[in-house]
Amino acid sequence: MTDCIFCKIVAGEIPSYTVYEDDVVKAFLDISQGTPGHTLVIPKKHVPDLFAYDEDLAAAVFSRIPKIARAVKNSNPAIKGMNVINNNGKVAYQSVFHSHIHLIPRYSNDDDFKMIFKDNSGKYNDEKYRKIQQAIKDQLEDEQ
Amino acid sequence: MTDCIFCKIVAGEIPSYTVYEDDVVKAFLDISQGTPGHTLVIPKKHVPDLFAYDEDLAAAVFSRIPKIARAVKNSNPAIKGMNVINNNGKVAYQSVFHSHIHLIPRYSNDDDFKMIFKDNSGKYNDEKYRKIQQAIKDQLEDEQ
Repeated sequence: MTDCIFCKIVAGEIPSYTVYEDDVVKAFLDISQGTPGHTLVIPKKHVPDLFAYDEDLAAAVFSRIPKIARAVKNSNPAIKGMNVINNNGKVAYQSVFHSHIHLIPRYSNDDDFKMIFKDNSGKYNDEKYRKIQQAIKDQLEDEQ
Repeated sequence: MTDCIFCKIVAGEIPSYTVYEDDVVKAFLDISQGTPGHTLVIPKKHVPDLFAYDEDLAAAVFSRIPKIARAVKNSNPAIKGMNVINNNGKVAYQSVFHSHIHLIPRYSNDDDFKMIFKDNSGKYNDEKYRKIQQAIKDQLEDEQ
């Protein structure tokens, strides 16, 4: 897409610190370096978000992720773990609408990246869980 | 694995609110419901984290994610986006050491889930980026 910054990176029109590239994906450093080694993996094909992936594209893109994740992890002995994150939609912090997967290395006691999950289980009963479960199952039946 | 809670869920020894299941993956509601509809997708095979995936397992597991993500999104018209998150290692908030992918639906103005990314680009210069880039590239050459 003409105005997509990531398509321009794929095309080489905008430079990037590329760490891996093949026919399907390109992986490069996130300029923000949320933590040191913060890497983005993107499909070369323009797709706005994960909802737009078909099975083949998901298989192709994500089959590359473990080896890139291992390389990022092994690039620095101080890296103790990794958050692999794909944000979809403005409300989910997506800011570039060319699908991308963040590999965020984590260090002991780093506080440059945080996730806050609430445990809401106290607000749920069996009926409430079942209602949500059924709504999702109904959609999956429509998909097939 | 004998003591793995997710292996027990796969085996049906512990009940779950399952929304999807096939020969490769099982998807069920996260009991914490970080946000309403919060779903986990796990490989049926016991693997501790993403670093332990080979290409085929990654392709198989992640090829299922877009259709499950679409179903979760379409299950509730109030869902406006989604964080797809895979945590690896204690420092990255992994608490069950059977690899799992969180699908966290997001709503307008929800504050039950938060991610805080820092933009550290002001602390980096070309040399610093290149050093990190080269360390990762070196590891990827070792992988191949």
